[in-house]
Amino acid sequence: MELDKISFEVALNLCLENAKNIEIKESVFINEALGRFLAEDIYAKRNSPAFSNSAMDGFGFKYSNNKKFKIIKTIYAGDKFDDFEIKDDECVKIMTGAKIPKDVNTVIPIENCIEVNDEYIVIPEIKKGANIRIKGEEVKKGELLLEKGEEITPEVIALLVREGITNIKVYKKIKIAILSTGNELKEPFEIASEDEVYNINSYSVSALFKKHNFEVDLVGIVGDDLEETIKEISKLKDSYDVIISSGGISFGEKDYLYAAFIENGLKPFFHGILVKPGRPTMAGIMDKTFVFSLPGNPLSAFINAFALAIPTLRKIAGARKYYFNYVLAKNEESFKVNPKKDHTILGFLNAGKFKVYEKYKYGSGMLKPLFYSNSLVLLNKGRDFIDAAEVLKVIPFNSDFVEFSNPFN
Amino acid sequence: MELDKISFEVALNLCLENAKNIEIKESVFINEALGRFLAEDIYAKRNSPAFSNSAMDGFGFKYSNNKKFKIIKTIYAGDKFDDFEIKDDECVKIMTGAKIPKDVNTVIPIENCIEVNDEYIVIPEIKKGANIRIKGEEVKKGELLLEKGEEITPEVIALLVREGITNIKVYKKIKIAILSTGNELKEPFEIASEDEVYNINSYSVSALFKKHNFEVDLVGIVGDDLEETIKEISKLKDSYDVIISSGGISFGEKDYLYAAFIENGLKPFFHGILVKPGRPTMAGIMDKTFVFSLPGNPLSAFINAFALAIPTLRKIAGARKYYFNYVLAKNEESFKVNPKKDHTILGFLNAGKFKVYEKYKYGSGMLKPLFYSNSLVLLNKGRDFIDAAEVLKVIPFNSDFVEFSNPFN
Repeated sequence: MELDKISFEVALNLCLENAKNIEIKESVFINEALGRFLAEDIYAKRNSPAFSNSAMDGFGFKYSNNKKFKIIKTIYAGDKFDDFEIKDDECVKIMTGAKIPKDVNTVIPIENCIEVNDEYIVIPEIKKGANIRIKGEEVKKGELLLEKGEEITPEVIALLVREGITNIKVYKKIKIAILSTGNELKEPFEIASEDEVYNINSYSVSALFKKHNFEVDLVGIVGDDLEETIKEISKLKDSYDVIISSGGISFGEKDYLYAAFIENGLKPFFHGILVKPGRPTMAGIMDKTFVFSLPGNPLSAFINAFALAIPTLRKIAGARKYYFNYVLAKNEESFKVNPKKDHTILGFLNAGKFKVYEKYKYGSGMLKPLFYSNSLVLLNKGRDFIDAAEVLKVIPFNSDFVEFSNPFN
Repeated sequence: MELDKISFEVALNLCLENAKNIEIKESVFINEALGRFLAEDIYAKRNSPAFSNSAMDGFGFKYSNNKKFKIIKTIYAGDKFDDFEIKDDECVKIMTGAKIPKDVNTVIPIENCIEVNDEYIVIPEIKKGANIRIKGEEVKKGELLLEKGEEITPEVIALLVREGITNIKVYKKIKIAILSTGNELKEPFEIASEDEVYNINSYSVSALFKKHNFEVDLVGIVGDDLEETIKEISKLKDSYDVIISSGGISFGEKDYLYAAFIENGLKPFFHGILVKPGRPTMAGIMDKTFVFSLPGNPLSAFINAFALAIPTLRKIAGARKYYFNYVLAKNEESFKVNPKKDHTILGFLNAGKFKVYEKYKYGSGMLKPLFYSNSLVLLNKGRDFIDAAEVLKVIPFNSDFVEFSNPFN
């Protein structure tokens, strides 16, 4: 058995094409909704502004050739009043956000007046209509404000609160199981001797998913026994929307995980990617459960969890925007690559430049390259050298997401 | 009384210079530590790799001129064994991550062999030392791994788990109070008539802080009464590391908040910034409590909470890295600005280009400009026109943080 040789780009596209939104909705209070995805379109319940109001602390008047105005009243933000008439030589003192009387069509800020005292003001030339926010100028009652699938960000919460909306329908959180394999791994709270290693992937991938607002269950370790592994996977399949494993799917001996997935009906989209690092990666669907099998090496497991799984999980969770919003940056230092493979390249993006980590000479078992990087370059095969000053598409680890992008170089 | 006219850059620097780490530590389990800041230096407890091991599934041997090797044993990841001798024409079949016997100094991947059967292999020319990860090649036991103030990211969690570290000292979460002012505001769960508006800032700023891993308390609304406001501030001062308010500090009438802060001993660093939008902004220290008074307008309150408060809160919370890591992007569409002021300019950063929101013609009372933007440009005064194709420093809303940067254009 040999691993597939599909490209990283095809692998990502296969994941995204096969990812289906779970389509289960629930109602949540906006304070608890950050990072969730809207399961309904939201239409404006009111105009914004709700009433015409002053954009400045100043004086409001009916525009004419007149330049001297008697102050007849002061209006504060929140003041309610029966409307009244204002003559051509009269004005109101008015605060920012205060409702303007129906006759007022222009406001001059206090600091722009030629003269101001308790009784009157004298003003210079000013544009008719200045410093007034007209009712409905930003949002008309009934218009579409937010689309299904929009992520609830702080900016979205601002829009919702302005409407007086406190409860919204969002998609239910997807259930993700993180499965450990390999009897040889020690959990970090155990003691490892010098020739034992800790189970890094479950914790690093969990933390990555949490950072991206996904909840995960660490469902434990399956042992090196085919029957036991088949049973365990079968249980998980019934309870989880997504199963994430790492290691154990490359070549036969003692790698029961692949067989146990297949036995449970897994249909892989791919089983192996021609990429450095991170080749032994598989994704597929098992009944309704999406499966990601990440590499065992912690660096490549993390990169593929980020670059392949995060966009896919967003789509399953109901997001409209699940493509990385890459930036452009100049490559700071040249480096060599193997032209026969795709590459996922770690580096530091700063002040418009991308610096590859240690000339791309690091191993997939290392962790410092991850820690000292803040971004990733996805490179398609065919190149053997990346020049300094070349402009690259770079994905920040903190990337936001857009409706579509092609982040491959 | 007139507002100060300091620059946005000076305002930010004053906030950062005066922000002091609270220096209270607590111990947390790593699964709960995401987004917190380390309160101790972490030194490596073990070598990484902990033992020399194979980087590939392949065959390990003692390098010589010999090209044909008899397979004498198979070693799996996690196998423990008493060391044994290997002759020049012998090799071991060895799996990725498996410990190498002391005599093995080179590994050839299975797929690179000329011939492989159950008994022997034939290999082509290969470099001595290939495909072996040497004990300690990445990390030497005792070396400094992580510095005090490092943010606990998924990558940091990977480093900690590799060490078998499950509990770490982090700085205590800072206590932040969000104070609403202005009797005229309705809470979003109340009914607002057509001439009433909702309290947007408390919710949008809370959500922004939550997104940045800070916890906040919404401590309610203080009314338009000086005595009451003084008392309320005095109580908050004793309980919170930071107080955030919005509105009520620009000009005297009905704006009791400024007076109440001063009465409680506030020493402002600045009271007004010559910036559009967001002029009525104040920051200062009141005993040990840091105070931010944001503008009342929701757009400028949000921008200043992001651009001034977030870096400052990170420093108070103990972060080593609290400067925005800006990117460079080409300005897509020219726009005009008032040369007498600094500007905070919203726009959309995508595929290496920055597009200003509606030619920078939007009001500070609006919210759509925030929703349709994903990034901010900080512009110092002196320019009246920003050309298309000009390269700008742009701060993504999802920016990461670095030890130092100058994000001002």
